Amino acid sequence: MCYAHDSLAATLLTASGAPANRIGDFAVGYVDVPPGETLAIAIDALAEGVHFATSDSAEDVAFKAVAVNLSDLAAMGATPRSATVGLAVEASRGAWLKGFRNGLGQAADAFGIDIVAADVCRGATVVSVEALGHVPVTDALHRKGALPGDSIFVTGSLGDAGLALALGRGEVSLSDDDDAAYLLARLNRPQPRLAAGVALRGIASAAIDLSDGLSGDLGHVLLHSAVGASVEVDKLPLSAALRNGVSDETARRLAISAGDDYELCFSVPESRRKALQARLPTMGCPVTHIGCVEAEPGLRLKFGDGRPYETPAAYTHFSAPG
Amino acid sequence: MCYAHDSLAATLLTASGAPANRIGDFAVGYVDVPPGETLAIAIDALAEGVHFATSDSAEDVAFKAVAVNLSDLAAMGATPRSATVGLAVEASRGAWLKGFRNGLGQAADAFGIDIVAADVCRGATVVSVEALGHVPVTDALHRKGALPGDSIFVTGSLGDAGLALALGRGEVSLSDDDDAAYLLARLNRPQPRLAAGVALRGIASAAIDLSDGLSGDLGHVLLHSAVGASVEVDKLPLSAALRNGVSDETARRLAISAGDDYELCFSVPESRRKALQARLPTMGCPVTHIGCVEAEPGLRLKFGDGRPYETPAAYTHFSAPG
Repeated sequence: MCYAHDSLAATLLTASGAPANRIGDFAVGYVDVPPGETLAIAIDALAEGVHFATSDSAEDVAFKAVAVNLSDLAAMGATPRSATVGLAVEASRGAWLKGFRNGLGQAADAFGIDIVAADVCRGATVVSVEALGHVPVTDALHRKGALPGDSIFVTGSLGDAGLALALGRGEVSLSDDDDAAYLLARLNRPQPRLAAGVALRGIASAAIDLSDGLSGDLGHVLLHSAVGASVEVDKLPLSAALRNGVSDETARRLAISAGDDYELCFSVPESRRKALQARLPTMGCPVTHIGCVEAEPGLRLKFGDGRPYETPAAYTHFSAPG
Repeated sequence: MCYAHDSLAATLLTASGAPANRIGDFAVGYVDVPPGETLAIAIDALAEGVHFATSDSAEDVAFKAVAVNLSDLAAMGATPRSATVGLAVEASRGAWLKGFRNGLGQAADAFGIDIVAADVCRGATVVSVEALGHVPVTDALHRKGALPGDSIFVTGSLGDAGLALALGRGEVSLSDDDDAAYLLARLNRPQPRLAAGVALRGIASAAIDLSDGLSGDLGHVLLHSAVGASVEVDKLPLSAALRNGVSDETARRLAISAGDDYELCFSVPESRRKALQARLPTMGCPVTHIGCVEAEPGLRLKFGDGRPYETPAAYTHFSAPG
C-alpha cells in the first residue's frame, strides 16, 4: 500500500548506527527483551506547522522526537533499547530529510539506542516516533498508584523550556547569552531522565514525565490514582538562568504550567524515603521534594506558610510579568 | 511537545477492546514477550492524498493499515500481539476519526490483537501504524537466506488487488457483482497470512509479503540473499474472479507486477519439502509452487515450455489488454 521509499528508510537506519543485520529489512525489525522483563512502548506523533515549524532545525526535530519518547520510557522505569520512525515527507525535502537523519543519529548515539525500523512515505510532513525499552515486570512504573501520605518529587528544574519558547518567539529577551543558550538547549535538546527512571524502580508509587507542565501532568497522576495533592510553590526547583531572566512570580508560573521540561514527577511512600535517599547518587540529576499526596481530589498549590497560591484564570506568561 | 489529544487516543484504545489496565496511559503501553522469543516489529506510514483518498472509507484505511503490518509480521513468522497508532488529523475530521476508530476495532477483533498505545495530534492526515508480535528467536524468518536449489512458493492468489484498484478507478468493469465484491475486499480488507507465517517457522529459508507485487518483492529476497530465480508464469495462482474479469495475459501481468495482494512468497530447501507438505493443513490457504532459486542473479520469468516471458517496458495494465 505504502509507497515505501526504501532508500530513504535505509538511510535513516544507517544514520543510527544500527547493526548491519538490522538494516536489511527496512520497515520491519527485531528487538530482544530479557526474560522476566516487559516491553515498554511510547509513541508521539508530531505535525509540521503544529508541533514544529518549517523553519525549525530538522536535526532538533528528530532529536527531540526521540528524546520525548525516551522521557516517557524513563517515567516507566524502562531501559531504552530502540526506536522506530514513521515519517511522511515530500520528496522535495531532501535537505530537511538529511538533517532529520542526522538528528536521529545524534539521539541514537546520545541515548545508546538503535533505530530498528523506519518507513518513509511521501506526504505532508508528519513524524511518528516510537521508543521501545524494557523493564522487569514487577518494577514497571505507572501513572496510577499514588496514595495519600506519599511525598511528591521532581527531577532537575522546571520552567526552563517555557522561557526558551518565549525567547524563541521574541516575547522576551535575556541579557546573558549563556543563560539563553542553556534555556534553548533545554527546549530543543531535552535530556530524558533515564538513569533516574531506572533508579526509581521499586521506589516510586507513581511516575510521569513533565511534557505538558507540572500542573497538567501531575493532574494525570492524581486522576489515575484517584487522589489529590498539595504542592508548595516555593519549593519548585528553578534554574539560575530562569531566575536571572524573569521575575520570581513569572518563574513560578512557568514552573507550574509551562510544558516541555521532560523532568520526572513521582510519588514515594514514607516507607521508601530512605531507599530513595540511597539511590539519589545514581539518578544523575537533582531531586526536589515539592509536596504530598492527599485523599481529597484536586491539586492545591500553596506557599510555605500555607496561603493558597492562585493562578489567574486567564494568565499570559509575558504580557504582565512580575 | 505534542498536542496530545488524550480523549481521542483513549477512544482509539477503547475501540480496540484493549484490557482496562492498558487504557490508563495513552501514548505509552506495555507488551509481554515470552521467554526465548524476540519481538518482531513492522511499521507503515500512510498519507492522505498519497496512499489513500479523502473519499476512502476511514474504516477501510484503519483496517488495512493494521492488516498490512500484520502481513509483515506473518512474513517474519511472528505471532501478532499488538499494534500502536500515531495519527495526525485535523480536529474537524470527527466523522473520519470515528470511522478510523471503528476500523481499528474491527482489525483488532479480526486478528486478536490489542491497540496498546496511540498518540493523536492535529495536522494533515497521516497514519503511522506499527504492529508488534513475537517469534522464537531461532525461528524468525528473514528476507535473506534463500539458496540456489530452494523452491519458491506463494500463498493464495495473485493479482486480485491490482484488478480491484483498476475497478475502483473505473478503468475496467466486471459483469459479475460477486466477483467485483470479492476483488474489492481483497484490496480494502486484506487478510494477512498469519497462520501460514507461523507454519513456515523452521521451514522457509526466506520469506516476504507481497505488498509491491511479486516481481518487486521477490526481487528484494533475491537481492538480500545474493541469488537469482526462475519463475514459471503459467503456475502463478489466479483467482476465478480475476480470470473471469480479464484476459489471461492481463491476469498474468497483474499477478506479476501489481501490488497490495499481501500474500506470502517464500523459499524452501529440498530437505524441508516434506515438512512443508505436512504443515499445509495448518496454513489456512492454498500454497503454490511457482519456481526455484538459482545462483545467477536476476529474476527470470518463463513459460512452462522454457520460452522467456517478457514484460513490455512501458506496460499499462488496461490501455491495451491482451
